[in-house]
Amino acid sequence: MKVSLLQFEPRLLDKEYNLKKMKQLLIGLKTDLVVLPELCNSGYVFANKEEVFSVAEEAGKGETYFVLNDIANSINCNIVYGYPELDGNNLFNSCMLIMPDGRFYNYRKTHLFNREKLFFSPGDTGFQVFTILNGVKIGMMICFDWQFPEAARTLALLGAQIICHPANLVLPWCQQAMKTRCLENRVFAVTANRIGTEINAGEIFNFTGQSQILNTRGEVLSSLSVSEEGTITVEINPEEANDKTVTERNDAFKDRRPEFYKL
Amino acid sequence: MKVSLLQFEPRLLDKEYNLKKMKQLLIGLKTDLVVLPELCNSGYVFANKEEVFSVAEEAGKGETYFVLNDIANSINCNIVYGYPELDGNNLFNSCMLIMPDGRFYNYRKTHLFNREKLFFSPGDTGFQVFTILNGVKIGMMICFDWQFPEAARTLALLGAQIICHPANLVLPWCQQAMKTRCLENRVFAVTANRIGTEINAGEIFNFTGQSQILNTRGEVLSSLSVSEEGTITVEINPEEANDKTVTERNDAFKDRRPEFYKL
Repeated sequence: MKVSLLQFEPRLLDKEYNLKKMKQLLIGLKTDLVVLPELCNSGYVFANKEEVFSVAEEAGKGETYFVLNDIANSINCNIVYGYPELDGNNLFNSCMLIMPDGRFYNYRKTHLFNREKLFFSPGDTGFQVFTILNGVKIGMMICFDWQFPEAARTLALLGAQIICHPANLVLPWCQQAMKTRCLENRVFAVTANRIGTEINAGEIFNFTGQSQILNTRGEVLSSLSVSEEGTITVEINPEEANDKTVTERNDAFKDRRPEFYKL
Repeated sequence: MKVSLLQFEPRLLDKEYNLKKMKQLLIGLKTDLVVLPELCNSGYVFANKEEVFSVAEEAGKGETYFVLNDIANSINCNIVYGYPELDGNNLFNSCMLIMPDGRFYNYRKTHLFNREKLFFSPGDTGFQVFTILNGVKIGMMICFDWQFPEAARTLALLGAQIICHPANLVLPWCQQAMKTRCLENRVFAVTANRIGTEINAGEIFNFTGQSQILNTRGEVLSSLSVSEEGTITVEINPEEANDKTVTERNDAFKDRRPEFYKL
């Protein structure tokens, strides 16, 4: 199957521009699964909750959902994208899996990063695995979830073959750490990061780009630079992630000994 | 405090040489804690159980213990070293912490690697944390335990500030993965690897050296090459590992959400 990611520079609170830009980059893409950045329709550095409310959308309802659902349908691929989610009076930093047949699933970020705690509620969905085309199993986690090995581990133990990882990274460590995540779990990972600088409310955030698609050994199959906008696509065999063999006598999962692990 | 490691090329089944070599490298060392490689007194590529029995020692009893206990006492430091342990008819791939006052603690490798399964029983001690000088807390894990994030995580959750990690590494990934282990747990790690090639019983193992001392950000404080024999020593403040701060609003431990983690 073909797996892709999209990296670009969203404009803060400019949903119209962001949707137009993503649409430009997605139309014509030949892929089975494309991962977009965290909060890709809204930008990141909100000054206050009101700004988040102004761009938040209910799961499966807002403009972003409709635009991306149309694209998923027209290019016949699965799309994972991050967005600010509105649920009653609560805001979540969420990502959505849209399937080309119109089904969708929502994940709410478990581990909020820094100022996100000022606006968003901690995710309450937990980590789940969804089956897309031909039995391929994907899991979703968002950005700072990388810091916690339990996130990718939980998805992998639930059977995820590909970890879809929308991100807005500012710390320097994630791209390397994700190699360890793939290696320890023998899964593929698609980290779709954003680029650029956002200045708002006296805060300056520099995003690190370097979006990457990793194989089950943590090797980079394809990546973008710190400043490129665009998409990359690789052909993978997701069934490689079913094979947890490390050596002829070692299996990354069967060798686990949870009776000695502390939660 | 000063933390050290020793890297060398043990000779298979030649305990006399190995002890003499380690003694040479340790005498005169000014440090508070030194970590030696896995199976440092025996070599690694055993042909059969009889070879392991010929060099195995009971915890706190054999020649290796007495020699290293004398050194720990004479240079006034804590020593962690790997050795084949005999317990009744069972063999374990173990490491021992010897304190300069004569106390000792034993850890039996939880995750056995490849051919080790032919000779050794899986460890039954689990992961424990021990207090050495001035309240400094150390944990022990051995070589392939690195592959399982739960090993370092468990030690860190139990309060380990420094992970002592004797190793006989042959896969290419550990040195990098240990940076993630330090970063995700905000602990120091001392990976003491061996060098050289061992050929026995039709098997060839090339050991990767590159022993390293990492800080709580996963940065290399000091390391050796793939071929050097010797010791390295760094000054660290172990209390840095008590600080799990990631950002002003994030704590690597308090932000954990075990209710969503699968064991």
